[in-house]
Amino acid sequence: MKCRKCGEKAVINMRHHKLSLCQEHYLDWLPTYVEYSIQKYEMFTRQQRILIAVSGGKDSLSLWDILGRLGYSADGLYIGLGIDEGIQYSAESERLTRMFAEQRGLRLHVVNFRDEFGESVPELSSRTRRGKDKPCSVCGTSKRHVMNQVALKEGYDILVTGHNLDDETATLFSNTLNWIPGYLTRQAPVLDNDLPGTVRKAKPLCRIYEREMAAYALLRGIEYIYEECPFSAGSNTIYYKEILNKLEKDRPGDKLSFYIAYLQAKENGLFAHQADPELENIHACPNCGQPTTAPDECAFCRMFSVKEKL
Amino acid sequence: MKCRKCGEKAVINMRHHKLSLCQEHYLDWLPTYVEYSIQKYEMFTRQQRILIAVSGGKDSLSLWDILGRLGYSADGLYIGLGIDEGIQYSAESERLTRMFAEQRGLRLHVVNFRDEFGESVPELSSRTRRGKDKPCSVCGTSKRHVMNQVALKEGYDILVTGHNLDDETATLFSNTLNWIPGYLTRQAPVLDNDLPGTVRKAKPLCRIYEREMAAYALLRGIEYIYEECPFSAGSNTIYYKEILNKLEKDRPGDKLSFYIAYLQAKENGLFAHQADPELENIHACPNCGQPTTAPDECAFCRMFSVKEKL
Repeated sequence: MKCRKCGEKAVINMRHHKLSLCQEHYLDWLPTYVEYSIQKYEMFTRQQRILIAVSGGKDSLSLWDILGRLGYSADGLYIGLGIDEGIQYSAESERLTRMFAEQRGLRLHVVNFRDEFGESVPELSSRTRRGKDKPCSVCGTSKRHVMNQVALKEGYDILVTGHNLDDETATLFSNTLNWIPGYLTRQAPVLDNDLPGTVRKAKPLCRIYEREMAAYALLRGIEYIYEECPFSAGSNTIYYKEILNKLEKDRPGDKLSFYIAYLQAKENGLFAHQADPELENIHACPNCGQPTTAPDECAFCRMFSVKEKL
Repeated sequence: MKCRKCGEKAVINMRHHKLSLCQEHYLDWLPTYVEYSIQKYEMFTRQQRILIAVSGGKDSLSLWDILGRLGYSADGLYIGLGIDEGIQYSAESERLTRMFAEQRGLRLHVVNFRDEFGESVPELSSRTRRGKDKPCSVCGTSKRHVMNQVALKEGYDILVTGHNLDDETATLFSNTLNWIPGYLTRQAPVLDNDLPGTVRKAKPLCRIYEREMAAYALLRGIEYIYEECPFSAGSNTIYYKEILNKLEKDRPGDKLSFYIAYLQAKENGLFAHQADPELENIHACPNCGQPTTAPDECAFCRMFSVKEKL
C-alpha cells in the first residue's frame, strides 16, 4: 500500500475516500479536510473568537492542534467533571489538557465542576433520579450548561466541539430508530444561536472517522487520554457505534454516506417545517438565565434545587 | 413459561408484546392481530375482491389461511419464475401452492413467466445489464408487472402481499441509510392506486415478525417451501435483516418500534409534501399500458425490447 501523493509506504488507507497516504501527507491532508468542512458548512472565520471544548481525548486535542495550524484563534475550555474513581479519569485528562495548552502557549479556561456547583458530576448523577437511569444524560446537560455559560460570559463568537463522524452517525442512528421529529430534524454540523442566551455551536470533525482522528493524534505525537469514561460502558452510544462499525467493516464508506445523505436530504427539503410546540414555552431560566422549555427552572438548575426536597 | 390466557405450557414468547401463549391461543391470537392491522390501516373490507400474491412460502400461505379464517374472500396468484437450477425452487413452491389451494377449495391464478414472456426470470436477469448486477431488482420489477396486470385484468379491488415486519424494517433501514426522499417517504402498509393503471396494494403482515409467521405456519400444519430463493444469498435485504436481528436480539421490540415510530412520525407530518419531479413525466407504457416515468416504454417492457439490440 503506497502513498498516493509520493509513492512512499502508506500509514493509512481510507477505503471510503479511496486514498492511502504516508505519515507526512496524512498529517497535511487531514487539516485541509477539516478546513473543507469548516467552509462547506460555514462554521466560522479566522476573524472570530473561538472557544473549543477540550476533554483531553484524541478528538478535541487534535482539533485544537488543527485549528491552530489552519490559522484560527481558539481558546480551550476544560471542565473537570470529578470522575476519579479507579482510573483517575478526570485528573489525568486535566493533566494532559493543561500540558497540551502550556506546551503550545494556548489559553485554557478550567472549570472545576465541584468547586463551582458543590458536587462532582458523578455525585450529582447518583443523587438525582435521572442520573441513576442515565448518567450520560446528566453529564451532557451539565457540560452543555457550563460550555454555554463560559462562552457567553467570555464573549466568544462560537463554541466548537470535537464530535467526529462516529459520534454523529451514532446520534443519527439513534434518532432514526426512534423517529422523534425534534431530534431527527435538528442534528447538524452547525447549530445556530437562534435562541437568546445560547451560543452558536459547530462540529468541524463531523465528516472525519474516529479511526482517522486516532491516527492523527498518534502520528502528530499528541498525548491524550486513551481510556473511555468509565461510565460510558453499556451506553446506547457505544452500542450504536458497534452496530455501525460492523456496517462500515462490511461496506466501507457506509457511515460517511449515511451522514452526508441525511444532510443532503435535509437541505433538499425532506422534512416539513414544523412549529415545535416545545419552543412556544421557551423562557429564560429564573436561576441561571439560560433558555429553557421546562415549566420553571432549566433542567440543569432543577437538579440542584430539588436537593432540599430529597 | 406459561400461556397468559390459560396457564398451560406456552409455545411462543413474544417479548416485544410481553406475551406468552400456548399453541391453541397463539393460533387464535395471530389472526386477531392481523385483523387489527387491516382495520388500523384501512386496508380492505369483507365486501371487496382481494387478490393475494402467493409464493409458496410461510408468509403468503399463512396470510391466505388467515384471511379465510377472518372471513375475507381472497383468490391467489402464483407466478412461476422458473428458478429451477439445483433445488427446483419454483417447481416445489408451485406444487405446495397448488396443494394448499386445492385442499381448501380456493381459486388460484397461475402465471408461468416463461410461457407468458418467452424467458424465465433467471434467463431475463442474466441477459440484461441490470439483472447481472441486481437479479433481485429484475425479479421485483417482473413480479410487480404481473401482479398489477392480473389484478387489473381480473377486476380485483386490492392486491395483498405477505411482506412481514422483518421485510418492512429491512426496507426502512435501507431507505434511512440512503436517505432517498422518494423511497423514504413512500413506504406504507397501504399503497393507494393514485395512478391510473395501478391497483391498490396492502401488507397485512407489516407488524408481524418473521419468527411469528414461521411459528404460525408450523403450528397450523401449513406445508411451505423452507428454502430461500437461491439468488437471495448475499443480497442487501438479507444483510440488513442480519443487522436488525442483532438489534432485536439485544433489544427486544426495537424492530417493531422502529417501524411503528416511522409510521407515526410520517402521520404527524414529519416529511414535507414534495412535488416528485419523476411523477411529472408519468405516462402509460406504449406497450403494456402500465404507468411509467421512463422516457418511453416501462422498465419491464424495456428489458424485452432491448433484446434485438444486444
